[in-house]
Amino acid sequence: MYDGIIQDLIDEFGRLPGIGPKSAQRIAFHILQTQNFDVTRLAELLNDVREKVRFCEVCGNITEQEQCAICRDPRRDETLICVVEEPKDVVAIERTRQFRGLYHVLGGAISPIDGIGPDDLSIPKLMQRLSSGEVKEVILATDPNLEGEATAAYLSRLLTAIEVPVSRLASGLPVGGDLEFADEVTLGRAFEGRRKVE
Amino acid sequence: MYDGIIQDLIDEFGRLPGIGPKSAQRIAFHILQTQNFDVTRLAELLNDVREKVRFCEVCGNITEQEQCAICRDPRRDETLICVVEEPKDVVAIERTRQFRGLYHVLGGAISPIDGIGPDDLSIPKLMQRLSSGEVKEVILATDPNLEGEATAAYLSRLLTAIEVPVSRLASGLPVGGDLEFADEVTLGRAFEGRRKVE
Repeated sequence: MYDGIIQDLIDEFGRLPGIGPKSAQRIAFHILQTQNFDVTRLAELLNDVREKVRFCEVCGNITEQEQCAICRDPRRDETLICVVEEPKDVVAIERTRQFRGLYHVLGGAISPIDGIGPDDLSIPKLMQRLSSGEVKEVILATDPNLEGEATAAYLSRLLTAIEVPVSRLASGLPVGGDLEFADEVTLGRAFEGRRKVE
Repeated sequence: MYDGIIQDLIDEFGRLPGIGPKSAQRIAFHILQTQNFDVTRLAELLNDVREKVRFCEVCGNITEQEQCAICRDPRRDETLICVVEEPKDVVAIERTRQFRGLYHVLGGAISPIDGIGPDDLSIPKLMQRLSSGEVKEVILATDPNLEGEATAAYLSRLLTAIEVPVSRLASGLPVGGDLEFADEVTLGRAFEGRRKVE
């Protein structure tokens, strides 16, 4: 619709997730019209991120060094490993300040529809980390959806076979939510997982 | 929340219009994780757009040359000028294939709240274009909102003073819409602007 490179830029933004053609157009014009918008900085950051950011050789989290900040931290408890799907999940759990162990990022979840099987995830590396025998608990923190549950079930079979204690994050009512608006699966899980009040 | 440059990239995307922190995070991870996402191309396009795209010296539309494709086109009717707020509006009108004249892009609309007065728009350039006396009609196609109407009212006073014929785009019911869902102002305008059926 536009001439030349401005249309190319709109198309390129439109390829990003969650950005439709209208948003892409708005962004392109914003960049064009905002005098103090630092195009060079965004361009450099894009290149920097591609060049410098990589995955931690131990846990698969993102990092700018060989190992991520969490794996490098000697104060973290090495006998606890929390298994998550994505680096984003590490950030979400770190925000709670409840977990002081290490992570293992699978890089996704088992999803036959998307053609992702166990071999596409970093499961061999997890097994290798567990082979030292020092790990006392593996916490499965994959998403509480179909793919996440399938991945957790698969992993718990593998791990109990090699006698590593496994746990799964609790499902239940979200804190601050309304019981009447909870879906039946969540409410069912909340009943299943009910705890005695002492 | 993240380490170093990945957070910088998230922040930078978060500065774009219509992108919140969650979307910015999703985009940054998409760029990081999609192997075939061409970061260099996006980075180059950003620089190219900043360097090469400028505003047409005649009408203010965007172009990669001194004059835009419309101003350079000898088949366009030079006696008709359609005044719009933004380059995006030119594209929208071109899409209708109804208008064969030239454009004049103001670069915004009068908006005292945002501190934009007539002096911040390319109104002097418009008056200069009209001074040749060749223009037979100026069509005011600013947005049908408060700022656009104010700008149209201001311009129509200026233009009638120098005896240039002025028109304003019709307001009324959108084609394909439902009468019952039209707001009262639009419906009022549709009544005001009703046309005799012959």
